[in-house]
Amino acid sequence: MADPKILETFPNPAPQRDFLIEHTHHEFTSLCPMTGHPDFANITVRYVADKTCVELKSLKLYFHAYRNEGIFFEAATNQICDDLGAALQPRSLVIVADWKARGGFSSRVTAEWIQPSD
Amino acid sequence: MADPKILETFPNPAPQRDFLIEHTHHEFTSLCPMTGHPDFANITVRYVADKTCVELKSLKLYFHAYRNEGIFFEAATNQICDDLGAALQPRSLVIVADWKARGGFSSRVTAEWIQPSD
Amino acid sequence: MADPKILETFPNPAPQRDFLIEHTHHEFTSLCPMTGHPDFANITVRYVADKTCVELKSLKLYFHAYRNEGIFFEAATNQICDDLGAALQPRSLVIVADWKARGGFSSRVTAEWIQPSD
Amino acid sequence: MADPKILETFPNPAPQRDFLIEHTHHEFTSLCPMTGHPDFANITVRYVADKTCVELKSLKLYFHAYRNEGIFFEAATNQICDDLGAALQPRSLVIVADWKARGGFSSRVTAEWIQPSD
Amino acid sequence: MADPKILETFPNPAPQRDFLIEHTHHEFTSLCPMTGHPDFANITVRYVADKTCVELKSLKLYFHAYRNEGIFFEAATNQICDDLGAALQPRSLVIVADWKARGGFSSRVTAEWIQPSD
Amino acid sequence: MADPKILETFPNPAPQRDFLIEHTHHEFTSLCPMTGHPDFANITVRYVADKTCVELKSLKLYFHAYRNEGIFFEAATNQICDDLGAALQPRSLVIVADWKARGGFSSRVTAEWIQPSD
Amino acid sequence: MADPKILETFPNPAPQRDFLIEHTHHEFTSLCPMTGHPDFANITVRYVADKTCVELKSLKLYFHAYRNEGIFFEAATNQICDDLGAALQPRSLVIVADWKARGGFSSRVTAEWIQPSD
Amino acid sequence: MADPKILETFPNPAPQRDFLIEHTHHEFTSLCPMTGHPDFANITVRYVADKTCVELKSLKLYFHAYRNEGIFFEAATNQICDDLGAALQPRSLVIVADWKARGGFSSRVTAEWIQPSD
Amino acid sequence: MADPKILETFPNPAPQRDFLIEHTHHEFTSLCPMTGHPDFANITVRYVADKTCVELKSLKLYFHAYRNEGIFFEAATNQICDDLGAALQPRSLVIVADWKARGGFSSRVTAEWIQPSD
Amino acid sequence: MADPKILETFPNPAPQRDFLIEHTHHEFTSLCPMTGHPDFANITVRYVADKTCVELKSLKLYFHAYRNEGIFFEAATNQICDDLGAALQPRSLVIVADWKARGGFSSRVTAEWIQPSD
Repeated sequence: MADPKILETFPNPAPQRDFLIEHTHHEFTSLCPMTGHPDFANITVRYVADKTCVELKSLKLYFHAYRNEGIFFEAATNQICDDLGAALQPRSLVIVADWKARGGFSSRVTAEWIQPSD
Repeated sequence: MADPKILETFPNPAPQRDFLIEHTHHEFTSLCPMTGHPDFANITVRYVADKTCVELKSLKLYFHAYRNEGIFFEAATNQICDDLGAALQPRSLVIVADWKARGGFSSRVTAEWIQPSD
Repeated sequence: MADPKILETFPNPAPQRDFLIEHTHHEFTSLCPMTGHPDFANITVRYVADKTCVELKSLKLYFHAYRNEGIFFEAATNQICDDLGAALQPRSLVIVADWKARGGFSSRVTAEWIQPSD
Repeated sequence: MADPKILETFPNPAPQRDFLIEHTHHEFTSLCPMTGHPDFANITVRYVADKTCVELKSLKLYFHAYRNEGIFFEAATNQICDDLGAALQPRSLVIVADWKARGGFSSRVTAEWIQPSD
Repeated sequence: MADPKILETFPNPAPQRDFLIEHTHHEFTSLCPMTGHPDFANITVRYVADKTCVELKSLKLYFHAYRNEGIFFEAATNQICDDLGAALQPRSLVIVADWKARGGFSSRVTAEWIQPSD
Repeated sequence: MADPKILETFPNPAPQRDFLIEHTHHEFTSLCPMTGHPDFANITVRYVADKTCVELKSLKLYFHAYRNEGIFFEAATNQICDDLGAALQPRSLVIVADWKARGGFSSRVTAEWIQPSD
Repeated sequence: MADPKILETFPNPAPQRDFLIEHTHHEFTSLCPMTGHPDFANITVRYVADKTCVELKSLKLYFHAYRNEGIFFEAATNQICDDLGAALQPRSLVIVADWKARGGFSSRVTAEWIQPSD
Repeated sequence: MADPKILETFPNPAPQRDFLIEHTHHEFTSLCPMTGHPDFANITVRYVADKTCVELKSLKLYFHAYRNEGIFFEAATNQICDDLGAALQPRSLVIVADWKARGGFSSRVTAEWIQPSD
Repeated sequence: MADPKILETFPNPAPQRDFLIEHTHHEFTSLCPMTGHPDFANITVRYVADKTCVELKSLKLYFHAYRNEGIFFEAATNQICDDLGAALQPRSLVIVADWKARGGFSSRVTAEWIQPSD
Repeated sequence: MADPKILETFPNPAPQRDFLIEHTHHEFTSLCPMTGHPDFANITVRYVADKTCVELKSLKLYFHAYRNEGIFFEAATNQICDDLGAALQPRSLVIVADWKARGGFSSRVTAEWIQPSD
């Protein structure tokens, strides 16, 4: 499984305002856990930073780590949401994953991060 | 008529959050009940899962079963809404059917599932 | 003038829910009442049915009847709204008419039906 | 300056309802007041008529009258808004002007008419 | 760093209404502060003017001044927001920066200006 | 049938060179001779003028005259080719008619004019 | 298998010239002979008629007859080419079949008819 | 009429090879000589330079000079071809003028320059 | 390296004519041999079959085998050309590989198969 | 001026065939030598390699070196053609430069390399 420790951060340059950051990765690929066939997606990370922002190169490496993982659309989207939420502790965070056509279907999974209660 | 028993499910991997799943099938086809001519549609299934998610291959087979059915746009959309609502018991569910051009018209039918009261 | 008696209906297959039906006709044409030149439009009929739905072939014939009528954009859109409202007695109804480029202009007229008070 | 007296009107054919009329002119051109170079725009007039509608050919001639006027984007948009508001006394009116690329920029100016208080 | 004194203004021609001005610059380029490689963006300045509007040629020169600056996406967007806010003292102001694809990512950063309290 | 006498011409302004003129009419409509339903086409007239060019407004009126004619795609295209060839006596002439979708088909008919031998 | 006797013809209205007829059917569907899953294609029939032209409604019915046939892309394209060549005896004929995405592939098969020697 | 003396040139930087230069002006506008209504075109100048290249700013001013000229499509295209041929004495030159939609038509006129024989 | 023995064939259904088969794979991915980063391409196989056609599912598996291979654009395209040429012994064969944007570049490599002389 | 020594090469992996390589750089920018304003272009390098291929990262750095150079469109395109021809000694080479809109113009310059005779 992709190791969230790959994710690096840098200090939010404008913590005085709530500004929105959206990164869309156009080259996400993983494997179908049932058939082993490749899946492809565009993944958007949309968040309002609190103390830290995610460094883009490390985010790329984190996504690359899914390349040979067998994982369902729904589970991958939620895993990414959990990992980025934990790493960034953002004011808000949404993951939108647009899975490309497979078997006549295209799919989108959208998950919003909730600060876990202790 | 397409048998909703074809539909298979798997457990929701993130029941702790309300996340949105959208599957769009680009290859739906049925027959016009009046003329027997083929109709074509893109069908979107948009839902928030509760305990289960719909398995994509079974959803494809369910849609394929309409191939030689004579059914009106409005009736097909509502039938799909009823069948998926019954199979998934979702937190919410909307079906959007975009019917391709026929006789100079394109059509969209949108139906939202309501938990039937007993 | 197009005779609204051309419009045929069939029973709403799912009256238990408010679902949205949209039909877009891509081949509407009428005449400019001032110059006699042809006008072209895409006309969308968007409604929530109550007891009846409009039958698509009869709707096409109703639109064809405008082919040689001289009528302004604003009047045609409102006439269609009145005729379909009277024929369907829908829970709600909106007509959107997108008139193609003429003299460097394109135009859209949008009218919402209101149940006439007696 | 374009003379608003060019604008002609005709009676609203459906004053009993608030319906929306949008005319987009794709061929607006004026001059930059600083350099004399031509500017080009798409101008949308979006309004709910009260007693009168604007006649389209007169609107075209009104727009043509800006062809050799030197005027800033912001001033032209507001001038059009004032002139059409005064001529139509509409229930509501918005002007949207999309100015084409100049010096690496495209611009949009949006102005809403307010009934002047006496 | 781009000097905000480059920014010139002219008097708002219609201060009696809140109208929206949007300028999109399609040719913004700066440098990545880590690798020195060029970054490219479309930058939209969306504001409601109070007493003054920004003059477009000076805005272009202000953006050109970033050409050889090394600066992160998040910091550049906020810097532009601060500089334009200070220069215009607008009724409202939003900066939207669409950064072109780099390493398989495209990014958007959106910042809204807040009048600093003294 | 559309009367070719509607077609007007003006003298070729550059008879010393073979230059190409292409006019595409986006609003051609006629009727299906079997069902009476409307057909729509884009018609391109592509020619090298000899002594005369076709006047555009008269070409529009010539095309409008097909509005209520029942005629097959293949016959209409050849009729237009014959009429324009006779009226212009061009150095060369091709008609391309792109018929819009009907019954799941779109169609293109292309005819090149040949100077009839006497 | 689709019966080529469904195909009807009418006399070529302009046999004196070689003019090109192209019909594109956007709703072709057949079945994969290995998996039984539906395939979809756009099929273009491009020909120069000799004595007869194909009647469009009969061509549609001929294509509809493939709906439940299991047939490979390459075989279907050649079968259509053979059937239309035999029915029309055209001066020339090409079939272009654009098969929609399946398993990450889209495919095009192009076959030109050759008059069989006896 | 636009004065060809506006056109300025600079020395061809690579006269040792035949290389192709294409400039497309997206903002050409003139007037219809019959109605006085504005016409709009994209004009492409495509040439192989011999001793000189056309300077782009002077080409823009040359095109701007047509703004208030009444001239037919065919005549304007040939005039531009003659003027640029005379000014540049190129190895080859083609003018392509794409006139925007007017009265349901769009038009293209293409003229190739021929070195006048003395 | 992808093993060409994965490739399966079936008999050409129409060896009597030279017909063209084109398969475009939209999901090719391999690795950069210098950085290890993923590359993505659309690969088109365009050929005239002689005795055999390539079976599509086996072609997909052959392409999937490049997923974790480090290989340059130019080498991969030529390797695919060699392997398919050897497997099919076609009358003609071209491979077109469209490599997606990396470092501000997109690339296309096109290779035509030549029957090796013994 | 960009130093062609930046360009690195690697051995052609398939010198036995003439195959085509096309690299399009979407991020070329230089300065106008007259005004100092930035210019932007897509530059395509299309060649048949002989002994060597150009390494893509070095090509990017070569293009980046134009960032602060003042150079005309025509001169830049020919300079790139000369430098790549000298570095690669290719079997054939064409440079196509698509310069983005400036002053209402877009431009394309196309140059083919000729092996200099000694």
